[in-house]
Amino acid sequence: MHSDTRFIWRHKDLLDVDQLNRQELFHLLDLAASFQEINTRPVKKVPTLKGKSVILFFAEASTRTKTSFDIAGKRLSADTFGLAASGSSIQKGETLKDTVLTLQAMNPDVIVLRHCSSGAPHFVAERVRCSVINAGDGWHAHPTQALLDCYSLRRIWGDAFAGKTLLILGDAAHSRVARSNVLLLSSLGVKVRLCAPRTLLPSAVANWPVEVFSDLNQAVRDVDAVMALRLQLERQQAGLLPDLREYARRYCLGLHHLQLARPGAHALHPGPVNRGLEIADDLVDDPLSLILDQVSAGVAVRMALLYLLATRNDAHTDTGERA
Amino acid sequence: MHSDTRFIWRHKDLLDVDQLNRQELFHLLDLAASFQEINTRPVKKVPTLKGKSVILFFAEASTRTKTSFDIAGKRLSADTFGLAASGSSIQKGETLKDTVLTLQAMNPDVIVLRHCSSGAPHFVAERVRCSVINAGDGWHAHPTQALLDCYSLRRIWGDAFAGKTLLILGDAAHSRVARSNVLLLSSLGVKVRLCAPRTLLPSAVANWPVEVFSDLNQAVRDVDAVMALRLQLERQQAGLLPDLREYARRYCLGLHHLQLARPGAHALHPGPVNRGLEIADDLVDDPLSLILDQVSAGVAVRMALLYLLATRNDAHTDTGERA
Amino acid sequence: MHSDTRFIWRHKDLLDVDQLNRQELFHLLDLAASFQEINTRPVKKVPTLKGKSVILFFAEASTRTKTSFDIAGKRLSADTFGLAASGSSIQKGETLKDTVLTLQAMNPDVIVLRHCSSGAPHFVAERVRCSVINAGDGWHAHPTQALLDCYSLRRIWGDAFAGKTLLILGDAAHSRVARSNVLLLSSLGVKVRLCAPRTLLPSAVANWPVEVFSDLNQAVRDVDAVMALRLQLERQQAGLLPDLREYARRYCLGLHHLQLARPGAHALHPGPVNRGLEIADDLVDDPLSLILDQVSAGVAVRMALLYLLATRNDAHTDTGERA
Repeated sequence: MHSDTRFIWRHKDLLDVDQLNRQELFHLLDLAASFQEINTRPVKKVPTLKGKSVILFFAEASTRTKTSFDIAGKRLSADTFGLAASGSSIQKGETLKDTVLTLQAMNPDVIVLRHCSSGAPHFVAERVRCSVINAGDGWHAHPTQALLDCYSLRRIWGDAFAGKTLLILGDAAHSRVARSNVLLLSSLGVKVRLCAPRTLLPSAVANWPVEVFSDLNQAVRDVDAVMALRLQLERQQAGLLPDLREYARRYCLGLHHLQLARPGAHALHPGPVNRGLEIADDLVDDPLSLILDQVSAGVAVRMALLYLLATRNDAHTDTGERA
Repeated sequence: MHSDTRFIWRHKDLLDVDQLNRQELFHLLDLAASFQEINTRPVKKVPTLKGKSVILFFAEASTRTKTSFDIAGKRLSADTFGLAASGSSIQKGETLKDTVLTLQAMNPDVIVLRHCSSGAPHFVAERVRCSVINAGDGWHAHPTQALLDCYSLRRIWGDAFAGKTLLILGDAAHSRVARSNVLLLSSLGVKVRLCAPRTLLPSAVANWPVEVFSDLNQAVRDVDAVMALRLQLERQQAGLLPDLREYARRYCLGLHHLQLARPGAHALHPGPVNRGLEIADDLVDDPLSLILDQVSAGVAVRMALLYLLATRNDAHTDTGERA
Repeated sequence: MHSDTRFIWRHKDLLDVDQLNRQELFHLLDLAASFQEINTRPVKKVPTLKGKSVILFFAEASTRTKTSFDIAGKRLSADTFGLAASGSSIQKGETLKDTVLTLQAMNPDVIVLRHCSSGAPHFVAERVRCSVINAGDGWHAHPTQALLDCYSLRRIWGDAFAGKTLLILGDAAHSRVARSNVLLLSSLGVKVRLCAPRTLLPSAVANWPVEVFSDLNQAVRDVDAVMALRLQLERQQAGLLPDLREYARRYCLGLHHLQLARPGAHALHPGPVNRGLEIADDLVDDPLSLILDQVSAGVAVRMALLYLLATRNDAHTDTGERA
């Protein structure tokens, strides 16, 4: 694994995974691997992004993603600035357009945006000169999650994505994680399966490049990895689920399910987990779980992404001191 | 534009604009202009305030002002510490005096304070050794807003403030922005007009150095700039406004109004804007709007102010490395 | 006062004060004294903890303790990351175990944890490789408060703790501050008295190494210092107090009480204070009050603690550049 520091990054923004071609994807993953090493040093800091300003604009609540970007930024010596929707101008009736134009006038290099409306990051990216990273928009996309999942799978699979089979289990209908992962992994030749109750399948699932199952024991057969999705408990109130106990009985992923899969199959979950609902205790705490690897991968992938976007316009004279 | 780095700054605090004489004002604006340049560099950071601690104590909600101070501080390498009223000791019944004495005991260099009570920053400044910046107190004063407005107007007008005419449009009665701007700009020889419904004029407006209008089309004639104020929507509930549509029809500033003003007249607004209520879409998005320049100016002016206050007691041996 | 920089620190965590032996305690206090000096410099920053990541996870509201740790971390050049319970994964139903394993996967050096459940920091410390500092857990322990109180008392008493008498006044039953101070100070030979209404005494007080009083005028006789505790106003609603005015009349510590104590006796209070309830105005504002010294001591003690924990595993080749 190495990265070519003379690589020219042509994207101002990261809005979804489909904008990356294979070469760009692997360049980003290679770079993330080189940054990953920094995170285990006694001195976890490099001057790479000194003097860059990264605004973390999380209009939806988040701990892990916001903290992950915050750590990624500061470990590269960027200054980070957190903004929440509550207590912000948005509460005072300011439009999203005016809020981001205001932020841009303070000359940030990157705005990381999480928003409850699908498409909000695209809307913003068209209006600001600085880079925009989509940190999750509505049910639409969560590209950095898909990239970190890809990073974690690569540590198990190597570069041999083509021909592998991944099962995505659970509420794909309301999951930006599922959407971005299907896009990214199927573009790498991974065969993707979905398994969920009919009410939790995307309405247009027939057009997705996936195979659909309703029985977990069948779905898990011969797969190379399973990604369980978080079940939002409000789905039940919306009438999409009969009963959480019944759901868990049929769809909670356990260690015994992995024994039906291919040897070496691991489990992923974007977190936070509902133990015993969508994934069983025994699996969460088993070495076959990649959940914590995913979290570590998240910091590394976001470091790589911040680096590529924030230095995009700088003269590429000396990148040797990057790490 | 240049700044004399041997200038001795005699003020511990910035509580309102009337404490600055003309020489101090222009020194601060010159310094801001030199810092403004930093904000457009690829590496937007200088070591000027390294090892200085700036506490951002915002007992009232704010996005833009707090973020502006935060960015200003970090670009000068100060450490910044955000404090909100919610979740703070104030909720536990601690007096403002005890809160700020506690903060002072942690040895900050500057406390930036926004507070709903007029006079709170004065109260605090008398009790702490460190510098205090008023970031908005009740309906009383918002000196850094007036300074950044002055900075933006100077970019259009140059140093020729005397004899210019500025119209301040809207709810001056409840506006700390209006109060501080009237003070600052009239001291520079600017003729200030107010235009608003009678219910939104300050009760003591007869004592203000302003000319009062109730008709916007008359008020805007021959002015060199118009500053529209934000209309707090709660004013209507308080019975001060008959109807928002009626208000907008009579007082919403549009591009066509500027055509009645002097050639080259620009529009300002402290933000966040209510589009179509106090200022029209066509004007917000027009090059004659200074709204985003004001935001950029805000970072530069606050950098200059933090620099002057935080280094006030330092030996002035070598300021050459400032920028 | 000096500190031996070759001292080997054997503790991964600081969960309560009873884990420190006398030598470790005084090493920490010596180190704090050397860091204290940094806090009064014009440039209050040293590169000691550059590249270290400190997560401030405050699941209970706090201003002073969180800001104190934040300032302590940044003055040593550590990166700090604030996390609140609201808006976090905990609200989404994630277990504390999963939250901290997630945080750990981002490779922090120290997690500072405040939590409403007694024992939460112990639970966490057993599950993560990084250091954990208990910043207050339920009614159980608040070790950094006891350490800073000890630091403040040492400035008055010198190292002669043995034989001194300390009165702890007020709601000891619900006070982690009282518990940690009794543990620490009685281990140093300080004779500790408690004085409170019976309903605010710990139920197992007979097993505590303390002498119990119900009359303040008797309790304060011949003591060398008095520590007033904060009275949580919700205790009255719980029926533990008849009447706040009656409480204040009997238990509010005033300057006149100190005249019954030994000459030079000072007053302490962990803050935030309820003036006129548990401590009188005249005493809060008197030089015999150590309240603000305690706050300053807090930053210094936390700097020392962060230093000892975060550098524990580093090679101790060159500590000369520490300050």
